Amino acid sequence: MNRHFAAADIGGTKITVSIAGKEGLLARIYQPTNKQGDDTTVPRQVHSLICNLCRQIDIKSEQIEAVGISTASPFKICARRIATVTPTLCGGLVEEREDPCNSWKQIPLERELGKYYPKISISNDCVSAVVAEKMFGAGRGEDNLAYVTWSTGIGAGAYVDGHLLRGKNNNALHLGHIFLASSDRNQPKCSCGSYGHLEAMAAGPAIAREAGLPAPEVFIRLRAGDRAACELVKKISVIFARGLVNLTCILDTRLIIIGGSVALNNWDLLAPLVRNEFYSSFPALTEDVRLRAPSLGKYVGDIAALSLVLPAEWIETYRARKPWMDAPPLLNLDSEPL
Amino acid sequence: MNRHFAAADIGGTKITVSIAGKEGLLARIYQPTNKQGDDTTVPRQVHSLICNLCRQIDIKSEQIEAVGISTASPFKICARRIATVTPTLCGGLVEEREDPCNSWKQIPLERELGKYYPKISISNDCVSAVVAEKMFGAGRGEDNLAYVTWSTGIGAGAYVDGHLLRGKNNNALHLGHIFLASSDRNQPKCSCGSYGHLEAMAAGPAIAREAGLPAPEVFIRLRAGDRAACELVKKISVIFARGLVNLTCILDTRLIIIGGSVALNNWDLLAPLVRNEFYSSFPALTEDVRLRAPSLGKYVGDIAALSLVLPAEWIETYRARKPWMDAPPLLNLDSEPL
Repeated sequence: MNRHFAAADIGGTKITVSIAGKEGLLARIYQPTNKQGDDTTVPRQVHSLICNLCRQIDIKSEQIEAVGISTASPFKICARRIATVTPTLCGGLVEEREDPCNSWKQIPLERELGKYYPKISISNDCVSAVVAEKMFGAGRGEDNLAYVTWSTGIGAGAYVDGHLLRGKNNNALHLGHIFLASSDRNQPKCSCGSYGHLEAMAAGPAIAREAGLPAPEVFIRLRAGDRAACELVKKISVIFARGLVNLTCILDTRLIIIGGSVALNNWDLLAPLVRNEFYSSFPALTEDVRLRAPSLGKYVGDIAALSLVLPAEWIETYRARKPWMDAPPLLNLDSEPL
Repeated sequence: MNRHFAAADIGGTKITVSIAGKEGLLARIYQPTNKQGDDTTVPRQVHSLICNLCRQIDIKSEQIEAVGISTASPFKICARRIATVTPTLCGGLVEEREDPCNSWKQIPLERELGKYYPKISISNDCVSAVVAEKMFGAGRGEDNLAYVTWSTGIGAGAYVDGHLLRGKNNNALHLGHIFLASSDRNQPKCSCGSYGHLEAMAAGPAIAREAGLPAPEVFIRLRAGDRAACELVKKISVIFARGLVNLTCILDTRLIIIGGSVALNNWDLLAPLVRNEFYSSFPALTEDVRLRAPSLGKYVGDIAALSLVLPAEWIETYRARKPWMDAPPLLNLDSEPL
């Protein structure tokens, strides 16, 4: 009998779901994330989307062996099951907000989806990205590697000695919330409420805040020779590189794959600046590290959550076929009722 | 036949060696570290000290099954064997020094000791300390824990998900060399040459530098009610706590055991200050973490290197007997020729 696996990417804006068979991705769908109702709304929406896809490819949802889930963290383990406690989805965690969309304090993803599927594997987006890059991308054959996203936030996932780091609540590699300041004084406020975190100093919104312009516009100006844009990007690159140094000091990694929209769109400009700062710190620790762009690039989202549950015996076929390159069109279920 | 294991703690000042049998530590010895000759001097000295102990307890050195070594890092893997490349021992790595004791650029510990013993396990002091604390001390039963030393330097060792982190060159957890500054400006210089590293801001010498007094004297004054000492220790505690936050963000650890002379001698004063800062950063990541003193305390050196090679079937006996509590006297081989 044919085997089937589902993958879901749960974001604050939309949920993308796909079903895969041995030969590749069979169907894909997305829908705006439903943030109303009780705290089981999101897992029920994921289930509903999987069922929709099952009907499309004419299988029963009982035939899905496992579901890989990539979503925003932090997580919390409740009764041995992973729940997400991200303010992006849980309005009940958001202070200072006039109109939170809901009062959820956590979303019991594993508990609820476990009612429908025999196996659920949940990771933060960057952790599933490092799994995918090690399985299919720039990290193949490497046992000490990290994937870092440089986007509206900064996050990471890593293997050390071939072991995927998870941590007590599956929260390993919250790189954006490391301090790069010895006190709060004159430091920007992070989305988490603290002052002086890496993300608050170097993620996309920090670039925009300092420039008074959207971050992509800063890079356009830099390419046109604007000196202020150049100085700002240099400064931000030093800060980001220091985040990579801190990661390296703690994990002694050999390869850092840097993705996310800030890096992907501007790696030609950023790479020399980041490298210059990175390798200047304690060479005995940094000199053997390679910094590079992801090889899955924009496809990482299509394969990351799936790689959490893909059976080992399918990996070679997937490596040869690269099914993310010719995935079926991503259908928008925007107007359809759940 | 009785089984025997050796353990060596190789420091910049002295080398301590012990031999253990099933019932506990059988003999111990130390000698000033010999830093003259060629780069095999230190491993040959370790071998010579082990042979000396073997004669004392009337066994042959061929009966030693394995040697655990705890020493200063960083390390480098050369032809699959661990060498130490620490400036503490290798004069050839030290710039700006008028009279380096030797010209070594590395010490091929594993290669040289591998000539005499069938198994060698080498770790940095803090990594072997976390192994010992997990096996015999405050970390028993915990799969997500770190040991951090707060002393003349700052370093760490950690398990994540039950896996002891080593890294590509066995350099995981060089916590002292993470940046806590977004630029070099106004930052103190670290022993490694960079500006703005945790160790340069919060280790014992940083306390002494800022106070113009030896670090222990600062704590004596603080206990006597001195306001300047109080302010300085508060400031340093915030910085150290931020190092622990960074460790926690990256590893999602549950338990941090804090040793080293600064912490061990002043934990009553430091704990509330460190905790106050630590738990204020992103509670979703920090709230489930326990910070505590080591339970092996001053004995950790006697058991850390040994715990790298201790056979699994001896662990229960050691837990019951606690042989580090009644170890044989540590003999000084100062005057004896090698």
